[in-house]
Amino acid sequence: MAYRIGVIGGGQLARMMVPPAVHLGLDIRVLAEAEGSSAALAATAVGDYHDADVVLAFARDVDVVTFDHEHVPQEVLRALVDAGVAVHPSPEALAVAQDKIVMRERLSALGLPVPAWAAVRDAAELAAFLDGHGGRAVVKTPRGGYDGKGVRVVSAADQADDWFAVVAEGGDGALLVEELVEFRRELAQLVARRPSGQVAAWPLVETVQRDGVCAEVTAPAPDSDGALAAEAEAIARTVAEDVGVTGVLAVELFETLDGRLLINELAMRPHNTGHWSIDGAVTSQFEQHLRAVLDLPLGDTAPHRPWSVMVNVLGGPAEGTMADRLPALMRDQPGAKVHDYGKDPRPGRKVGHVTTTGADRGDVLARARAAVGFFED
Amino acid sequence: MAYRIGVIGGGQLARMMVPPAVHLGLDIRVLAEAEGSSAALAATAVGDYHDADVVLAFARDVDVVTFDHEHVPQEVLRALVDAGVAVHPSPEALAVAQDKIVMRERLSALGLPVPAWAAVRDAAELAAFLDGHGGRAVVKTPRGGYDGKGVRVVSAADQADDWFAVVAEGGDGALLVEELVEFRRELAQLVARRPSGQVAAWPLVETVQRDGVCAEVTAPAPDSDGALAAEAEAIARTVAEDVGVTGVLAVELFETLDGRLLINELAMRPHNTGHWSIDGAVTSQFEQHLRAVLDLPLGDTAPHRPWSVMVNVLGGPAEGTMADRLPALMRDQPGAKVHDYGKDPRPGRKVGHVTTTGADRGDVLARARAAVGFFED
Repeated sequence: MAYRIGVIGGGQLARMMVPPAVHLGLDIRVLAEAEGSSAALAATAVGDYHDADVVLAFARDVDVVTFDHEHVPQEVLRALVDAGVAVHPSPEALAVAQDKIVMRERLSALGLPVPAWAAVRDAAELAAFLDGHGGRAVVKTPRGGYDGKGVRVVSAADQADDWFAVVAEGGDGALLVEELVEFRRELAQLVARRPSGQVAAWPLVETVQRDGVCAEVTAPAPDSDGALAAEAEAIARTVAEDVGVTGVLAVELFETLDGRLLINELAMRPHNTGHWSIDGAVTSQFEQHLRAVLDLPLGDTAPHRPWSVMVNVLGGPAEGTMADRLPALMRDQPGAKVHDYGKDPRPGRKVGHVTTTGADRGDVLARARAAVGFFED
Repeated sequence: MAYRIGVIGGGQLARMMVPPAVHLGLDIRVLAEAEGSSAALAATAVGDYHDADVVLAFARDVDVVTFDHEHVPQEVLRALVDAGVAVHPSPEALAVAQDKIVMRERLSALGLPVPAWAAVRDAAELAAFLDGHGGRAVVKTPRGGYDGKGVRVVSAADQADDWFAVVAEGGDGALLVEELVEFRRELAQLVARRPSGQVAAWPLVETVQRDGVCAEVTAPAPDSDGALAAEAEAIARTVAEDVGVTGVLAVELFETLDGRLLINELAMRPHNTGHWSIDGAVTSQFEQHLRAVLDLPLGDTAPHRPWSVMVNVLGGPAEGTMADRLPALMRDQPGAKVHDYGKDPRPGRKVGHVTTTGADRGDVLARARAAVGFFED
């Protein structure tokens, strides 16, 4: 009997779980938000993941439920667990990823390095934080943010009034405010953890964000042998184990100008900073996530080549689709690995990515940047 | 608009085209023989590929038709072409793979090295061939054979009477008889060719057959640098270009005791001897086949590691399925790449394969053999 995995959400992360499921002989089923989703090939149901009945019906015939995103409400997650469905990551773990204030509280309690932060309920509290941190800070909505949405740099206490109004109505009324970290670069450490405890780590990677969106990832992070990589892996292992994360955990990190690591964000699912592993590692983050949530032994995370670079295709071509540009790129770069998520181009939207691999970092990076240029005008 | 590929046949070759189609954003559709096929995930139609109406209806909404197997009748292929459907490989090329006598005639006409052969119509003609070739020979039915079926070693002229009776009724009345080649080993050269002419070759591989079925493939073939590899590639390029093959072409070869190469068989589709490329090369044979039949520029065929070994899972476990054995193998070998075709275990049936890669050939081979042992009793 094949293992049966149900994925809630039909985005590109669910889509990219399909290839390893095919190879491993796993029966993968997707609950998509709408027809024609990125993961449509495996979509066995279309419905609203906010509706517990929809999700329960979808989950009835699978061995485990996992996720394309972290937005499934806690009450729906709890209903699944109450119905006896295996849910990975668990509602308890996901709660830490779903609310940035909960996340900061938990990481602080674990003694892990985070930027200075506070939960602020009004402009006066924000003003106090600004006073104590050089007059500038980052304000984040605790819930629902991604790809730079829900994140704002402020230098005056009234610059978050609109968000205070929103959270006062909806959630617990607080915003997260953090010091503006002066960082040398951004890094990401991905690990996977099985329910029974095994953890596997990929090499630490360097990421470049553009307008709050991951644009470029180099694996491994240059100049990251030794202590830095060991510290990043130890942080991610601590989070995975103490929070009880199952599946892939991505820990986004700042490397400060004075060489410290600070945790920026957490994601409990395959993550953009791990896409390089599809073409660059023995076991991709998508295969590993499937193995982990099924509590199967984890695979080898070793890279194929010394360097891999992944570049996102953001927005896509001004006219037409990625497919229209495929022949020109393929002619130019026989070694580029193209991933087209089957999404309509739209400014800023992640519609695909390209990975290059090789022995010379400069060459691999140049090829990746040139490759993605074929798909963006 | 995504490229749309229609694959006739729902076996594991169609199944393994799905992952690269997902990554490249290609719309892949399969015409399967029955429900629950190995390629069921992409099966948009179920029907009989002998029925031109079924195949024409399937082909209506795709840009190109290609194949999981070579058994689609010429009249159906011609009906597709007459209806304006792009068919790759073409009926003319496939004719050479569909009939072993046509194949031998064509290869001989091209001056390519083949075993001594004859088309024989009765026991007397077979007796004459046996007399001229040491009293033993290989008899093959011209059509429909695969995996050792339709192949028989004979040492007396009456040992093919049953097959003569069959071909006398059905085909053109002849069997193929070939000298029994004394070979040092078997090799396979895979290439892919686009309609517009570009050809790309993977490294020559060594294959081990067991009971006429591919059991083990080592890439690249040991001790095959230089002249031998160049000769094999030249042979495959000549066949691809002169026969006008589009998509993947596999040329199975004997290396004789005195160091010559002789062509054994041809296949015009992804081939068992190329499965290693999924995990072992920058561009797998499945991705390359899709690129080739769409006339897209071909990908880099370079291996990831010095050695790759692929071992077939033949038959599968005596009880249960491959999935039942997955945890034990994964625990033992984190680097083994498992492929489960989703087929019910049956003696001798190809139900999956495992690929290992690495720097030391002996180690890679030992790991592959040990890995497949988990799935066979």
